[in-house]
Amino acid sequence: MSRIVMKFGGTSVADLDHIRNVALRVKRQIDMGDQVAVVVSAMAGVTNQLVGWCQALSPLHDAREYDTVVATGEQVTVGLLAIALQGLGIEARSWLGWQVPVMTDDAHGTARIQSIDGTDLIARMQAGQVPVVAGFQGVGSDRRITTLGRGGSDTSAVALAAAVHADRCDIYTDVDGVYTTDPRIVPRARKLAKISYEEMLELASVGAKVLQTRSVELAMKERVRVAVLSSFGAPDDASQGTLLVDEDEIVEKEVVAGIAYARDEAKVTVKHVPDRPGVAAAVFGPLAEAHVNVDMIVQNVSDDGTTDMTFTVAATELPRTLVVLEKARAAIGYTKLITDKDVAKISVVGMGMRSHAGVANKIFRTLAEKGINIEVRSTSEIKVSVLIKQDYTELAVRALHTAYGLDAS
Amino acid sequence: MSRIVMKFGGTSVADLDHIRNVALRVKRQIDMGDQVAVVVSAMAGVTNQLVGWCQALSPLHDAREYDTVVATGEQVTVGLLAIALQGLGIEARSWLGWQVPVMTDDAHGTARIQSIDGTDLIARMQAGQVPVVAGFQGVGSDRRITTLGRGGSDTSAVALAAAVHADRCDIYTDVDGVYTTDPRIVPRARKLAKISYEEMLELASVGAKVLQTRSVELAMKERVRVAVLSSFGAPDDASQGTLLVDEDEIVEKEVVAGIAYARDEAKVTVKHVPDRPGVAAAVFGPLAEAHVNVDMIVQNVSDDGTTDMTFTVAATELPRTLVVLEKARAAIGYTKLITDKDVAKISVVGMGMRSHAGVANKIFRTLAEKGINIEVRSTSEIKVSVLIKQDYTELAVRALHTAYGLDAS
Repeated sequence: MSRIVMKFGGTSVADLDHIRNVALRVKRQIDMGDQVAVVVSAMAGVTNQLVGWCQALSPLHDAREYDTVVATGEQVTVGLLAIALQGLGIEARSWLGWQVPVMTDDAHGTARIQSIDGTDLIARMQAGQVPVVAGFQGVGSDRRITTLGRGGSDTSAVALAAAVHADRCDIYTDVDGVYTTDPRIVPRARKLAKISYEEMLELASVGAKVLQTRSVELAMKERVRVAVLSSFGAPDDASQGTLLVDEDEIVEKEVVAGIAYARDEAKVTVKHVPDRPGVAAAVFGPLAEAHVNVDMIVQNVSDDGTTDMTFTVAATELPRTLVVLEKARAAIGYTKLITDKDVAKISVVGMGMRSHAGVANKIFRTLAEKGINIEVRSTSEIKVSVLIKQDYTELAVRALHTAYGLDAS
Repeated sequence: MSRIVMKFGGTSVADLDHIRNVALRVKRQIDMGDQVAVVVSAMAGVTNQLVGWCQALSPLHDAREYDTVVATGEQVTVGLLAIALQGLGIEARSWLGWQVPVMTDDAHGTARIQSIDGTDLIARMQAGQVPVVAGFQGVGSDRRITTLGRGGSDTSAVALAAAVHADRCDIYTDVDGVYTTDPRIVPRARKLAKISYEEMLELASVGAKVLQTRSVELAMKERVRVAVLSSFGAPDDASQGTLLVDEDEIVEKEVVAGIAYARDEAKVTVKHVPDRPGVAAAVFGPLAEAHVNVDMIVQNVSDDGTTDMTFTVAATELPRTLVVLEKARAAIGYTKLITDKDVAKISVVGMGMRSHAGVANKIFRTLAEKGINIEVRSTSEIKVSVLIKQDYTELAVRALHTAYGLDAS
């Protein structure tokens, strides 16, 4: 007997037929003798409609009222799924965030879970009841409804799994696991049976959007075993997804777990900045104040006493970045700004990098052999990222996937 | 300065434009210097969709889950209206049933309000805040969401008005008041400036569905002054509706306040029942046990020691009525059942009947003059009802409207 939290996203509960299928999947888990709690999102499309209504009435709407409105999406789904489960003879009941309660801070729209008291839910699960818990929502200190921000249901599920001491948190999604890279680019990409939290975090932050980043951080902190599974696969596939676990649980560590790419960054070069102490602060200070998140940074010194600062930002933040830098032009003293959205960031991620030298070198050599120029590079303990021309994305990903021995045989 | 509860139904908040209009109407009330709380229903059509989903998943769905699902309709509207009000510079906040709290019994789907603590809301209204309260919903003893049954938002508004000691409860609806009869049948029907709770109750129960019956009962019990107003009328019409008040407030009592009709009844005749003591109980006992509501009753004794029992039920309950009577055939000992759905009930309602003799006689004489046969008749303290052939409905209503001097000049 295990205790399992099963989480289903919006596409898995998109309509009544899908909700019936989710109920059947939950029943199969129960029939295996497990204790089950379920976390669900809103029916696909519903949240967008509710958000649209709030924005249409007032672009600067009260986030507390926004939360009251959008939280109804999950409220509908938990009630309907409880009804569907009861129709299969399963004792089920819905739980809203304020009923559990899922206590959060008061940052409406982007609230963070502070505590979940799982005592009552555990007692009910032990008595054979299936709690159906609304994801994405909680309640703040003033008893008003809060929401966790987009993708927050993953975090709800992991937090609930920690609160009820679940053996596993199964995240059902529209992919069937975490792959060594995007199978649309590399048909020979392999599904990973296990991946460490740290690797998953790095992959999530560079574009492999299987799980919300915060849910992975929470799983790592609370040591919750998370399985990523397909909600559309055959029933027997339930154990066939990817398991997120502590590094210690992965006995045979691959040097490289996967290759990720992101095409939504933009490169900015600030030309001919006087090369004096504090110049980096002059450039990046104003950007930090404007909450522009700067990613990769490289600095080239030239002979004439000036330097070129090159960095990347999210493409969506490029207009704001330019506004900030134009304002700071006098203070920085640069001659011109050059921007380039025609770039892609390729990242090689793996725990094994810590103990294996030469990983970065292999990247540079592999790309050089294919004639791909590296514009910016950055490294962390378990990740090496390079910025290249966007046209070369597929070529680079395929070459690296092969070079690191990740291709399926 | 008055304290006003304003209630808007589903057609008044049918879409974002309507919600903006409601916000403007609330603003006008505030600009007049009044303290205002608002009660709203779900956007028109939303509740039907939610109910349909529950029924599609399971015809015998858990009423607690049903309530969780359908209560979201009002939750969306309160959030959106609060946003719209804030957009007009008004300090507003939404209140869900469990937040106020509106305490109800645990009869999910048809819950009754037990108590509303208005202290906090009064303090906020005095401080200039506009509470926007979800109608139709409350919370039960186990902290689960309850709903009051169809039309329950009227009752929510009246109960809230009592709890915050409001000077008036304004019910905005798609008619602009209570008329002496249906203006579609009698163009010269007059809008009543005032009507007593008792008269309104009798009119509501015989087909003039302006207000939910329970809300009128509650207004009478709590002595809440209720105004029925059009949400689509010109702004200046706000004082032009019909005011429900205590009988004592109506100085010039009309003998007759209005003429109502109902075409959704069916007549049942149980033929040749042995005329012995207890025979009425033999017929009506099984119907009461089956929760069939019997309305008008008449008994004709014949020469042969048998009697014919004739009564009316709601047309929708006719099939069930026949099943019950067929089962009880041996016990009752009748020869056959005759049914007739081709009937209409015409009711004349007025406080003045108590002190004026001859009201009933005038009905019988008026209908006789038009050649209309009365099949069944029943009287209460302030109401006389007759059952006639349905074809004569309009003729009868018009003749009575004129006979009682109700025609507008």
